[in-house]
Amino acid sequence: MTDKTALTPATHTTPPAKFSHGVRKGNILQVAGQVGFLPAVEGQTPTVAGPTLREQTLQTFANVKAILEEGGASWDDVMMMRVYLTDVDHFAEMNDLYNTYFGEQGLKEAPAARTTVYVGLPKGLLIEIDALAVLG
Amino acid sequence: MTDKTALTPATHTTPPAKFSHGVRKGNILQVAGQVGFLPAVEGQTPTVAGPTLREQTLQTFANVKAILEEGGASWDDVMMMRVYLTDVDHFAEMNDLYNTYFGEQGLKEAPAARTTVYVGLPKGLLIEIDALAVLG
Amino acid sequence: MTDKTALTPATHTTPPAKFSHGVRKGNILQVAGQVGFLPAVEGQTPTVAGPTLREQTLQTFANVKAILEEGGASWDDVMMMRVYLTDVDHFAEMNDLYNTYFGEQGLKEAPAARTTVYVGLPKGLLIEIDALAVLG
Repeated sequence: MTDKTALTPATHTTPPAKFSHGVRKGNILQVAGQVGFLPAVEGQTPTVAGPTLREQTLQTFANVKAILEEGGASWDDVMMMRVYLTDVDHFAEMNDLYNTYFGEQGLKEAPAARTTVYVGLPKGLLIEIDALAVLG
Repeated sequence: MTDKTALTPATHTTPPAKFSHGVRKGNILQVAGQVGFLPAVEGQTPTVAGPTLREQTLQTFANVKAILEEGGASWDDVMMMRVYLTDVDHFAEMNDLYNTYFGEQGLKEAPAARTTVYVGLPKGLLIEIDALAVLG
Repeated sequence: MTDKTALTPATHTTPPAKFSHGVRKGNILQVAGQVGFLPAVEGQTPTVAGPTLREQTLQTFANVKAILEEGGASWDDVMMMRVYLTDVDHFAEMNDLYNTYFGEQGLKEAPAARTTVYVGLPKGLLIEIDALAVLG
C-alpha cells in the first residue's frame, strides 16, 4: 500500500476546490493545471504575473516546477506536458519561450512529450499547463 | 505480463466505438471521458440526466465512480481528474458541486489533481470528466 | 534508476520545440500529440496528408503507431487515447474510421479508454491524438 500525498508548495495558495496542486503515489507524480499566478500572498486573491504570454508562461513553468520539487521530482522526470493556449497565434512565441526555458534547465534526459491545444480559459489567462512525471 | 482489462459497469452502455469506458493494467486504471448519461436501458439511446450543470455533473461523477469500482479502485486512488466544461461561467457552480460531492465521499487520502478547460462538447452536454488512478 | 528515452521514429521530423514525439521510462510510454503529417522529408516543412478528416485520421493513427513501435509497444499496450477534433460534426465519421482501423489491428486485449473533445488546432488540421501506454 502506497500513500497518495498532496503536493502544496509554500508559494501556492490552497486550491479553490477539493483538489490538489499535485499528488504523488509511488513513482507517479501528477501536477494539476497550473496558470501564471504569482506566489500566493495570504489574504489576497491570486494575481496573474502579467497580461503577456511571456510573463504568464514563465510563471506557469515556475509553478509546475515548484510542485515537481515538492514531490522530490525535477523536469527530467516529466513524461508529458499538456499546454493549453487560448490563441493559435501564440504557438510560435510559446515555443520560443519553451525552448529557451528548457534549454536553461540542464535536462539530463530526453525532454517530455507534449500536446498543445487551443481552448477557453478564465478571463485574463493565456496559458495553462499540467504535467505527468514518473520518478526514477 | 499483465493483462489489460476492460471495465464496463452494468450501468453503462457499450461504448459507441472500439474503446473501453475504462481499462486497468497492473496498478494503473484509466477512466474514459464520462458524461451525464443516465444508466443504460437496453435498446434505448443514451439519455442525459438533465439540462442543468448540476444534474449532469452529479451523474458524471456517478459514472466515473462506477468504472473505478468495476476496476477495484475508489476515489482515493484517483491521481488526476480532467474536467471539460463548455462555459467559463460554469466554473464556480462546478466547484461547489465538486466540493460538496467529494466532501461527502469520505476521502482518506489527498484529493486528486485536476485540470479544468473549456471546450466544445456534443449538443446538450455541459461537462465531461476522465480520470487516471493508481491503485495502492 | 530508469532512464527516460526519447522515441523518434525515422518517419518523424525533429519536433518543432524541446519536446519528444514520445518518451518511455520503465513500463510507461507517452506519445505526444500527433497530427496528420506525412513522413518527414529532410529539408521540407511538414506536409499534412490531405484536407479530409479521413486522410488526416489515418495518417495520425500511423504516426502514433510508429512511436509506440519505436518504444517496443503496440496498440495493445495503449491505456488511453485523447482525440482532439475541431468540429462536433466530425464525431461520427471519426468513430467509423476508428472502428475500421482498430478492427483491422487484431487487438488481443481490451481497446484503450478514450476521451474526445472539440478544440482549436492550427489552420488546416482537423484532428490530433495522443496516447498513454503501459507495457506488459
